[in-house]
Amino acid sequence: MKVNGHDYLTVWMEGSSLMMIDQNKLPWSFEIHQCHDVRASCEAIRNMTVRGAGAIGAAAGYAMAQAFLQAPDSNPESFVKQARLDIESTRPTARNLFYAVERVFEAGRISTANAVAEAQLVADNDIADSRAIGTFGSELFGNQTRVLTHCNAGWLAFVDYGTALSPIFKSRNNGKEVFVYVSETRPRSQGARLTAWELHNENIPHLVVPDNAVASLMAHKKIDLVMVGADRIALNGDVANKTGTLDRAILARYFNIPFYVAAPTSTFDAQCPDGSHIVIEHRHPDEVLMQEGPDQWGNLHKIRVVSKGSQAINPAFDVTPFELITGLITEKGIIPAEQQAIQKILTS
Amino acid sequence: MKVNGHDYLTVWMEGSSLMMIDQNKLPWSFEIHQCHDVRASCEAIRNMTVRGAGAIGAAAGYAMAQAFLQAPDSNPESFVKQARLDIESTRPTARNLFYAVERVFEAGRISTANAVAEAQLVADNDIADSRAIGTFGSELFGNQTRVLTHCNAGWLAFVDYGTALSPIFKSRNNGKEVFVYVSETRPRSQGARLTAWELHNENIPHLVVPDNAVASLMAHKKIDLVMVGADRIALNGDVANKTGTLDRAILARYFNIPFYVAAPTSTFDAQCPDGSHIVIEHRHPDEVLMQEGPDQWGNLHKIRVVSKGSQAINPAFDVTPFELITGLITEKGIIPAEQQAIQKILTS
Repeated sequence: MKVNGHDYLTVWMEGSSLMMIDQNKLPWSFEIHQCHDVRASCEAIRNMTVRGAGAIGAAAGYAMAQAFLQAPDSNPESFVKQARLDIESTRPTARNLFYAVERVFEAGRISTANAVAEAQLVADNDIADSRAIGTFGSELFGNQTRVLTHCNAGWLAFVDYGTALSPIFKSRNNGKEVFVYVSETRPRSQGARLTAWELHNENIPHLVVPDNAVASLMAHKKIDLVMVGADRIALNGDVANKTGTLDRAILARYFNIPFYVAAPTSTFDAQCPDGSHIVIEHRHPDEVLMQEGPDQWGNLHKIRVVSKGSQAINPAFDVTPFELITGLITEKGIIPAEQQAIQKILTS
Repeated sequence: MKVNGHDYLTVWMEGSSLMMIDQNKLPWSFEIHQCHDVRASCEAIRNMTVRGAGAIGAAAGYAMAQAFLQAPDSNPESFVKQARLDIESTRPTARNLFYAVERVFEAGRISTANAVAEAQLVADNDIADSRAIGTFGSELFGNQTRVLTHCNAGWLAFVDYGTALSPIFKSRNNGKEVFVYVSETRPRSQGARLTAWELHNENIPHLVVPDNAVASLMAHKKIDLVMVGADRIALNGDVANKTGTLDRAILARYFNIPFYVAAPTSTFDAQCPDGSHIVIEHRHPDEVLMQEGPDQWGNLHKIRVVSKGSQAINPAFDVTPFELITGLITEKGIIPAEQQAIQKILTS
């Protein structure tokens, strides 16, 4: 996608270096971060210089390829095995990471060139999946559509295009009018920071909405469609996604507005029968108590936004039951959030 | 209520001075602001040093009394009339303000002492109403109750006790265990700043909740009761209150959790047949785009929290339809949100 008029991916290789958009610096500044070796790449994944399921997977695959490129002639095998362990220890819950590392490690048994090619293929597959999601999802858009999205399931979370935002980009490119309401997504404000930044760069008309104003917007018939991403989808169609997704699904049902979840089939967890088996990560209360941003002179400050004697809870995700979901938009097509349909698509 | 172990009201008179807690400084510092004359009192109401329906009403009544005390012997009547216009121009939408000014102005026709006494009565009535709401509302509490509240309908918004928080204070004083989930209430964060501050001062166990985590809390059966305040209640029982109230009412209905609105009968607008007639104030987008608070050294900063190319919408209130409201807690008792019951209580 475009930044300042130039096309970018979130992660890519240049020679033996892993390059990435520094997502810790966004949206306040746009910088490219270069990882010269696998150690630097591990650190970049760990400290969230790169974040988002698909982007993490691609970065991990490239890092695995870097290990083959760097391995000393004396004892290449032990170097590569240690690198694999290092990469896998960066973000233990990101499923895409393990999948990508496995693919590149196995490919490297043949040759280093084969490992590098496989890493590229992992990233290319991610791009192709996101693009296909955009094509299928855009069929849901009329000539004028007002969409609500939550958190960031845009191209920054993948290698390109994204999931929930991909149909929006595609519809716009097809000449349809799209207006996006971006819910702020406290506490980390990925909507206000990342999704808003993506839409601004692509010149797509949008407004940031306080998380508290979603029902009000729906009551005033301002939203035609809700579209969000997913972190994990259980076999019965229950969806784990950023906290606040369940709130929006219930509100959409009350106001009779279609609610879609966009995700590649790699997000489906065939080992997970339903949402009750998904463990919800509770993150540090400081994410709620403090907020960071630039003052009018561009100097970053971390300020307290909650009264000092009080503590906060911070569940990172919630689970939306399948019966609230109108459909799942995958790279293989749009399916109902039902076990039979999910099992069929996973084996097709 | 107590601050640092001492009892305070939000506004009170000392001689001819109007005294108030400086709510612009809360929760970062606790300061008393003194208004020596009616001009200073007008400025304090206008710049929100005092805010909240009941507190504004009491402050306006006191300011009107100040005008009688200050009026020059030469032409007292024109001074007092001009003062009334000045007070009424501070916050044109706050109904309590006009009601209080009218009462004190009329009382002043008899004597200045009578005006001062009437101003005190306005404040005393506010306290009595809030206390009665606490008594009736506390009947809804079992021995262990987990309440969700939104925004600030505590004692800072009135003269003492408040509305939605009054039953919580009362229940605790009656020896019941109460745990309060305080929704942050973006964009102005009155929950995180004011309600959390009140509960901390009163040693009531509580946690601040990101606005996005309300459905998640309800799904995990952490909330027994929702209790909020109101800015205006239409004759049919529709309630205008801080944006996000409608969201919580819909979620409470989905999870089958009782949803109560606490407000004195002065909040009912007999001229307003239903919520569709309530005009929703849209406030400046900067309230969403920027946030203010202290850094770790206590220095206040205003920082940007939304990507720079993007704009925001900021509806200050929403309207919750009567059918989502379990009951209205007034100073005359708990009634259903129905036109017949409302008409009866307004004429009783």
